[in-house]
Amino acid sequence: MRKIQLTVLAAAVGLLCTSVGVNAKSYNITNKGQWLLTNADLHIKTPFKIKQVVLHGGKQDGTKLLTIDNGVMRITLIPTRGMDIYKVKTSQVTLGWNSPVKQIVNPKFINLQSRNGLGWLEGFNEMMVRCGYEWTGHPGVDKGELLSLHGRAGNTPATEVLVSVDEKAPYAIHIRGELLEQLFKQVNFKTWTEMTIIPGQKSFSIHDKLTNQGDYPHEYQIIYHSNFAQPLLEKGSKVAVPVKQISPFNEYAKKGLKNWDTYLGPTKDYDETVYNIYPYADSQGKTLAVLHNAKATLGVAIHYNVHQLPVFGLWKNTDTLKQGYVTGLEPGTSFSFNRKFQRKLGLVPTINPGETKHFDVTYQILDNHKAVEKQLDQVKSIQGDHPIDYREDPLVVGG
Amino acid sequence: MRKIQLTVLAAAVGLLCTSVGVNAKSYNITNKGQWLLTNADLHIKTPFKIKQVVLHGGKQDGTKLLTIDNGVMRITLIPTRGMDIYKVKTSQVTLGWNSPVKQIVNPKFINLQSRNGLGWLEGFNEMMVRCGYEWTGHPGVDKGELLSLHGRAGNTPATEVLVSVDEKAPYAIHIRGELLEQLFKQVNFKTWTEMTIIPGQKSFSIHDKLTNQGDYPHEYQIIYHSNFAQPLLEKGSKVAVPVKQISPFNEYAKKGLKNWDTYLGPTKDYDETVYNIYPYADSQGKTLAVLHNAKATLGVAIHYNVHQLPVFGLWKNTDTLKQGYVTGLEPGTSFSFNRKFQRKLGLVPTINPGETKHFDVTYQILDNHKAVEKQLDQVKSIQGDHPIDYREDPLVVGG
Amino acid sequence: MRKIQLTVLAAAVGLLCTSVGVNAKSYNITNKGQWLLTNADLHIKTPFKIKQVVLHGGKQDGTKLLTIDNGVMRITLIPTRGMDIYKVKTSQVTLGWNSPVKQIVNPKFINLQSRNGLGWLEGFNEMMVRCGYEWTGHPGVDKGELLSLHGRAGNTPATEVLVSVDEKAPYAIHIRGELLEQLFKQVNFKTWTEMTIIPGQKSFSIHDKLTNQGDYPHEYQIIYHSNFAQPLLEKGSKVAVPVKQISPFNEYAKKGLKNWDTYLGPTKDYDETVYNIYPYADSQGKTLAVLHNAKATLGVAIHYNVHQLPVFGLWKNTDTLKQGYVTGLEPGTSFSFNRKFQRKLGLVPTINPGETKHFDVTYQILDNHKAVEKQLDQVKSIQGDHPIDYREDPLVVGG
Repeated sequence: MRKIQLTVLAAAVGLLCTSVGVNAKSYNITNKGQWLLTNADLHIKTPFKIKQVVLHGGKQDGTKLLTIDNGVMRITLIPTRGMDIYKVKTSQVTLGWNSPVKQIVNPKFINLQSRNGLGWLEGFNEMMVRCGYEWTGHPGVDKGELLSLHGRAGNTPATEVLVSVDEKAPYAIHIRGELLEQLFKQVNFKTWTEMTIIPGQKSFSIHDKLTNQGDYPHEYQIIYHSNFAQPLLEKGSKVAVPVKQISPFNEYAKKGLKNWDTYLGPTKDYDETVYNIYPYADSQGKTLAVLHNAKATLGVAIHYNVHQLPVFGLWKNTDTLKQGYVTGLEPGTSFSFNRKFQRKLGLVPTINPGETKHFDVTYQILDNHKAVEKQLDQVKSIQGDHPIDYREDPLVVGG
Repeated sequence: MRKIQLTVLAAAVGLLCTSVGVNAKSYNITNKGQWLLTNADLHIKTPFKIKQVVLHGGKQDGTKLLTIDNGVMRITLIPTRGMDIYKVKTSQVTLGWNSPVKQIVNPKFINLQSRNGLGWLEGFNEMMVRCGYEWTGHPGVDKGELLSLHGRAGNTPATEVLVSVDEKAPYAIHIRGELLEQLFKQVNFKTWTEMTIIPGQKSFSIHDKLTNQGDYPHEYQIIYHSNFAQPLLEKGSKVAVPVKQISPFNEYAKKGLKNWDTYLGPTKDYDETVYNIYPYADSQGKTLAVLHNAKATLGVAIHYNVHQLPVFGLWKNTDTLKQGYVTGLEPGTSFSFNRKFQRKLGLVPTINPGETKHFDVTYQILDNHKAVEKQLDQVKSIQGDHPIDYREDPLVVGG
Repeated sequence: MRKIQLTVLAAAVGLLCTSVGVNAKSYNITNKGQWLLTNADLHIKTPFKIKQVVLHGGKQDGTKLLTIDNGVMRITLIPTRGMDIYKVKTSQVTLGWNSPVKQIVNPKFINLQSRNGLGWLEGFNEMMVRCGYEWTGHPGVDKGELLSLHGRAGNTPATEVLVSVDEKAPYAIHIRGELLEQLFKQVNFKTWTEMTIIPGQKSFSIHDKLTNQGDYPHEYQIIYHSNFAQPLLEKGSKVAVPVKQISPFNEYAKKGLKNWDTYLGPTKDYDETVYNIYPYADSQGKTLAVLHNAKATLGVAIHYNVHQLPVFGLWKNTDTLKQGYVTGLEPGTSFSFNRKFQRKLGLVPTINPGETKHFDVTYQILDNHKAVEKQLDQVKSIQGDHPIDYREDPLVVGG
């Protein structure tokens, strides 16, 4: 009789667990200020900590930061700035850079149209900023309107912020944020950004879903502008990409084309050079880019799919430390030209009414020589003996 | 002796009541966040509820909403957006529309100058938005300055918000909000907006007072941009106005002139047609516009005075549901041309130093055939056998 | 034995005081909302009170005001607006003016680029506003970019706000605020503003330190735009400056050149006249400007150094009271011309990488005839028999 009771009890417990949620425990933290969730709160042994704080002072007033510590890596997101990634840190590696912009600026203090459309630079200090989705690229007039640098998503505060943790090992943590780009008569984009982090793993994935909620087709563009500095960037650092075609962004970048894949140390008056790459991919469209330090002992790999993001921009800004010593690895639908130059390149895709476009990008921290080599091998494998088309001239004039 | 005491007591109570306020109980809620006032709080039996909430998330951060439920109708105002009216609902009728803009955007996130002066459209989703008072109309350069669409009042957070309830039946509720348009050397406008709502009645009134606080005369303009959709707007809906003169806003609207007073259902690629009307009024200047559904069983009447608001714009935006299926009934000092076109039409009035201009608009919900008919009769009565001047061409070229 | 004990005790107290802080008791109030510190809190007998409040309603939403009452003078600063000084009051004198702009506007609601670069005027009502440091002067295009009126510092919320009180008499109060002007690739300025107030004294000092945190030299400009009205400004008020050269700002100001140092009462259609002055200074570069009422019984003296601030702008805006009856005394690196006009005048200095520029300005309230005379004597002493170079024409054409 006692046995039966236990069985009944076990069944009841099972039902109870199921009723808590098949897959995950979820929290809508949109209206929260300071907020904390740890593995202990969910009776999970694998350590993690998810914490939101609200900043004060200066142009940071009201900016929310969400930090996910998965035991081996600490990722800081900015819900107030398009769910951008501010920094990622492990004990050995930092993803991100030291921008001269020190504040994590609340978009309410930024005028994107100011400075001939360069207002975006007043807030630019993220490790990853979404440049889209209405448009991307350099400021300039297209269709009679000044498009500000790199669109507005990165300066759009998330309308909804959801945190969930899977109920089963490996207890994946999902951070979702909704970005709305809505303008009566002109655009009605909803993007659900999602970042997935597995406790104990030194990688994380982005999966974003852009939906055209309007009744008319609409152009869109996106660049996942991913920025790195020390310790990955130093004199002798290298970047590896399976290259189908590479060209200098502008006249200034022509002279550095030969050494496109190696980096200088901080260099006065370097300013920036940019290279436009069409990458090769595997049979499923998967490709990657790898950045690593001079000794190839530390690095980062970015995995993406050319069916979603067909091109790759490489931004080399190895100027002085205080000016911002940084390189950008930028998978995207488009290069960084103003939109008006990209239509003829076929890099201004259209999203149909009701359609959803998916974008997947995985960042992998490489913290030993073997890990770096493995990713470099992957690049080589995709490159195989496919030829590289070196273009001496920029794809567009005046871009 | 006991009788005398009671009399004295009664007198004292009377005095006490009087001392509480001859006319009304008033609250300054400018500094309040969440706030609630019900009839019970004032020991009144007629039910009503006045509630303020503060929104969070996205561009709604800090937006205040004030909802007045008068027992039969629920009106939501936006103190953070010029005391605009967001929606009005009864059990049968909704005044307002479903804009693609889903957030109730805090003006701190809107750059009115952006998008060639169309930034206003990033927040446009109200049932009634004040388009003024410094200027109104389409964006364009006038006197060397880019005037953004429809002025700034609708994106001006109220400096003072006052709620009062009359102490005597019918216990009218008054919501007052102060809007300041101040720019050193150029403009010093103060507008006290007031909305009056009677418990139990399905109508409400606006009474706004614009004062030129400066020492110099100043141009001003205002349009009460009132927007409606389902259930009032559908295929076969009609609008009725006593028309003295009607003209298409632009070339595109010419083809629809004949059917200016009937509506299509949601229509792909319809975009918008606009008609400019000079209405007839009664001997006191009173006039009205009526919008009703196909069966004439539901409608809204807008009562105003041509001495205050001499013209009427009719905006027909019967595009698809997701694009924003809506019509605007717009009594104003002016049409929606850029200000530079309206001076020659005599539609840019001047307000003198210290002068106060009054604007009264009453909205009446019509929820049965008889109520609709009564208002249509009123339109017919004002029209009488006065002729309609149909103009085939727009009043201005390039407007 | 008792004596020894007391000595030990005294030593301990001494140590204790030292350990609390050699010079001052300090508070970082960046994250504070409402906040109060009085002399009693620090066990000091000299009365003072330092109080922060946060404003609500309209465009004031979130604006912080910091008021320092030093027993004889009440100074109100605006941390949210570049540590600007709003007003200074003693029992007899008010420094500041009555702008038509009534709100203390949070910069999040101001678009400096709007109105052809005059957006700054939507918030202008301070007694002292910092016009700099990236640029100053009238709006206009320089180097292909629209520079908005008077730069951005005055609309920059302080990133850090520190309050300290010296531990020894006279218990000087120091209010420090950090302003950041940072734009990736273009500017990296940090300015530590500091105001020092001595309890019981009717004067206060500004000491600002501008540092170029970048690795490249950068142009900078600053005007300490100091504005006064009644009771110092009235018909017959005078301003005294040791003048080396004076010229009208523009054609309109030419006719008033002869009477540059006297004021009219409020005058309809006066608009404004501006005079550009190169002042004489003493052997250390020290100079001053004095403004006083008609009877020379009330006034203000502004002390500064021509090695830091070589020029002085005099802005006479004696228009009507409601239009803003005010005069600006403006020591600066530059006049109020657009930057493009000032390079040829040598008034666009450069700050080198890592360099710090210091700016000291002392304001002294003069509340009796003797005090006014003493400062006027100082002006005379510096002027001595040095000649005045009256220029009939503006220094630049079209400025």
